[in-house]
Amino acid sequence: MSGERLTGVSRRDLLSLIGATAGGAVMYHAMTSLGLAAESGYKGRIRLEGDPKGASVLVLGAGLAGMTAALELRQAGYKVQVLEFNDRPGGRNWSLRGGDSFTELDGTTQTCTFDPGLYINPGPWRIPYHHHAVLDYCQRLGVALEPFIQLNHNAYLHSSKAFGGKPQRIREIKTDFQGHVSELLAKATQQGKLDGAVTREDQEILLQALKSWGALDKDYAYRAGEVSAEFRGFAKDAGGGLGAAPVPGEPIALSEILKSRLWRSLQNFALYEFQTTMFQPVGGMDMIGKGFARQVGDLIRYNAKVTRIQQTGRGVTVTYQDTKQPGSTLQASADWCVCTIPLSILSQIQVDVGPKMKAAIDAVPYASSVKVGLQFKRRFWEQDEAIYGGISYTDLPIRQISYPSTGYNAGGKGVLLGAYTWNGPNSYEFAAMGPAERIRRAVEYGAQIHPQYKTEFESGVSVAWHRIPFTLGCAGDWSEEARHQHYDDLCQIDGRIVLAGEHASYIPAWMEGAILSSLDAITRLHQRVVAA
Amino acid sequence: MSGERLTGVSRRDLLSLIGATAGGAVMYHAMTSLGLAAESGYKGRIRLEGDPKGASVLVLGAGLAGMTAALELRQAGYKVQVLEFNDRPGGRNWSLRGGDSFTELDGTTQTCTFDPGLYINPGPWRIPYHHHAVLDYCQRLGVALEPFIQLNHNAYLHSSKAFGGKPQRIREIKTDFQGHVSELLAKATQQGKLDGAVTREDQEILLQALKSWGALDKDYAYRAGEVSAEFRGFAKDAGGGLGAAPVPGEPIALSEILKSRLWRSLQNFALYEFQTTMFQPVGGMDMIGKGFARQVGDLIRYNAKVTRIQQTGRGVTVTYQDTKQPGSTLQASADWCVCTIPLSILSQIQVDVGPKMKAAIDAVPYASSVKVGLQFKRRFWEQDEAIYGGISYTDLPIRQISYPSTGYNAGGKGVLLGAYTWNGPNSYEFAAMGPAERIRRAVEYGAQIHPQYKTEFESGVSVAWHRIPFTLGCAGDWSEEARHQHYDDLCQIDGRIVLAGEHASYIPAWMEGAILSSLDAITRLHQRVVAA
Repeated sequence: MSGERLTGVSRRDLLSLIGATAGGAVMYHAMTSLGLAAESGYKGRIRLEGDPKGASVLVLGAGLAGMTAALELRQAGYKVQVLEFNDRPGGRNWSLRGGDSFTELDGTTQTCTFDPGLYINPGPWRIPYHHHAVLDYCQRLGVALEPFIQLNHNAYLHSSKAFGGKPQRIREIKTDFQGHVSELLAKATQQGKLDGAVTREDQEILLQALKSWGALDKDYAYRAGEVSAEFRGFAKDAGGGLGAAPVPGEPIALSEILKSRLWRSLQNFALYEFQTTMFQPVGGMDMIGKGFARQVGDLIRYNAKVTRIQQTGRGVTVTYQDTKQPGSTLQASADWCVCTIPLSILSQIQVDVGPKMKAAIDAVPYASSVKVGLQFKRRFWEQDEAIYGGISYTDLPIRQISYPSTGYNAGGKGVLLGAYTWNGPNSYEFAAMGPAERIRRAVEYGAQIHPQYKTEFESGVSVAWHRIPFTLGCAGDWSEEARHQHYDDLCQIDGRIVLAGEHASYIPAWMEGAILSSLDAITRLHQRVVAA
Repeated sequence: MSGERLTGVSRRDLLSLIGATAGGAVMYHAMTSLGLAAESGYKGRIRLEGDPKGASVLVLGAGLAGMTAALELRQAGYKVQVLEFNDRPGGRNWSLRGGDSFTELDGTTQTCTFDPGLYINPGPWRIPYHHHAVLDYCQRLGVALEPFIQLNHNAYLHSSKAFGGKPQRIREIKTDFQGHVSELLAKATQQGKLDGAVTREDQEILLQALKSWGALDKDYAYRAGEVSAEFRGFAKDAGGGLGAAPVPGEPIALSEILKSRLWRSLQNFALYEFQTTMFQPVGGMDMIGKGFARQVGDLIRYNAKVTRIQQTGRGVTVTYQDTKQPGSTLQASADWCVCTIPLSILSQIQVDVGPKMKAAIDAVPYASSVKVGLQFKRRFWEQDEAIYGGISYTDLPIRQISYPSTGYNAGGKGVLLGAYTWNGPNSYEFAAMGPAERIRRAVEYGAQIHPQYKTEFESGVSVAWHRIPFTLGCAGDWSEEARHQHYDDLCQIDGRIVLAGEHASYIPAWMEGAILSSLDAITRLHQRVVAA
């Protein structure tokens, strides 16, 4: 069978054959090598068929995993109740606006003083296009979406150790690196150095492709001129009328780019999870949690701090405290329990599960992460620097500055994400500070990239996830070894208890992981209930 | 002076020195080689200082160039009147909605039957972030903007001659091409083939950079596995709960990508004019024209077809016809004239200008261009294929399919840009058809990429710019030679007449060119008036 014949309709027949004879993994391999569509982790809207005959479920946690379970299980005929630690739905699906207040572990309470209409998402803040479950629930729950800009070519890459500390436009580093790489490979091709690796016929096309893709001129050189300027931009942009001819800019030398290490950030714009088109809910990420709560809010008991989870062969009993009534001890019981409490918390609660699940619960450390939201008097990044959305990356401890993906070009005040740290040496500095100090330092570091910070800053708010009582960390930080040893044990139904949440998924720290984990858990739970 | 010392504050001093001693062009060169900011063609809001002492201006054309002139000149104290051929403001800044109707040269009238809220922009449809003048007028005129998605990694590249005609996800072609290029260059580096071209020290860093940027694995290979999958996507996406591990996909071989020629479209996502963040006005591109008309609508006489432009040493008289009163002959006079009539039309009107400007007016052919808008019963591209905004490129005569950059994920009907042709062999087919046939063929061709077309298509509308009476073409299509010979003559003030429009700019076919051209023209006109 020729390569050509393998394309088209006959490929699907071939795939069926492979699937039937060699099994799934081989078929996936064959599918992609034939260029067919990828398979999503989301199988479409869940169908829990069969009568649960009045069975009851206690859901622990009203984050996205818990509320997904509550919504779908009630719809399938279960009696559902939900216990939630906070006084609001959503968990880490959270937005902070003026008037919102919260307290970190050390007792420091912050009250956000942002102007009306401005917010920061301390938890999840962007939705990839392939997070099909999140997108589908947004549609069902009437949550309007708008694009989240991950890559803005006019934002900056910044290193305190390169270019004298001067931020470089992403556009220039990205284009120049690609151009230099193309020129090097084109020259190597022309010099016969790819002979053996690439056929002569392909070398001819490769040269054309490198010229087109790498902005090379007629001599296959990447250098100052009209060709490179069409990609990297101009020293003087084209205009109208007289004296309006554009002036090309001068590319940055390869050696300078290499030594600057700014190329390290380029992958943030190419990774599958950060590719266009990304989304955010209009008005704040918590629109999703609120959307769920419109459906299941009546099932949720807020301010409920779980202290003990017991099960027998006949049901589950959960002991909890009403955090508004210190010293209170309350109990809730049901036939089954879907527990979405973060493992960082659950590992500190006495839970009646077998040793395997217990070992799994204890095996997952949680990532520390800090976000800082900063309100400024004006959107100087747009007005002065033509940066509309997107992210600047830096080697400073703030790691990045993200510009709002909404309210473009309209003037007025704005809120930046002024720091977003994650596990790692560079994040320890921020992780160890109290909120006031984090904000102060975010402004100080940010001013190295945007000097306007010094005069335009108004107020800030900061969340250090490892200091937030309801999670004690940002997300499950699975090691490869822990996942190999414990993941399946974590996800198995243990008697009458099943766990769900981003920690029980292969997409940790993403809302999609939380929802998919929940859908899988309740599907298996329901099968067990109906089979019983 | 060491390279390191050249960075930082001292660079500005250096630049001042260069600017003062060697002039502008050298300074631009120095500026960019030092990594400083580019200069825009927009100098900020125009200031026409000095009293025009009651001088009057006749503006021909109420497109963006004409309305910019009208707005700014009135504000500067001029008496302004505007003559416009159409019965609406905006010119090519135009959106078609249900109920709108228009007639092409051959007398064929189309009435758009799109559902409420749906539209197509037959003219300009996207705004680059560096089109500062357009953005500033949007802000002043209260025109809200939203992102226009140019690159959607999940849209398609399609060739009828490759992959059996099966569309390929942009994500996969883009990632795989970059990966293969990186592997080839990494191998060449390791084999010492870059010795001489790149220092040993830089070679070490280059290897790290190619690994990071090109998604190479520990052996510097680009191949199926976790590393490449993190960029190109998976055969089976990661999920939640049990059986949720992701399965990497198989990259497409370099030879296949090269022979497919799909790499040709990749530059559409890297060009300066198409880089993130692009914009569109919320509700349709004509919101800009309507915004201008809110300011200057009282100055516009619609349905005015200019037939003769006369000037003496003392003023300008324009003869025109009211197109609603066939046979009518009317005249308007003023001290000065800003003429924004497209050269395709102006070259057919008798105009009292000198031979140089007349030669320039005749020197610019106009591009033919066809757009087709197609309404579908449902947004199948989102629902079935997870394509949210962006553009699929194809070698078929439709050239591209653009998905709406608004109303994402909300269900309901949608309008695609189902064809967008430009000058060139592939566009002649569409250019020669009547509207009904263009729509029929757009549906037929499009179905090769989206089979859903066959059952979901509802209605279409199509604009062939060379058949549109008020422009007879899409935009000025300057050759390099014509520009060299005629451009400055076109832009000079000829007696009491000055021309403006995208054709009198270095940014042809873009709204920015129209506005900048107008600002430059009225600035020079005003200087002359005030000096007189």
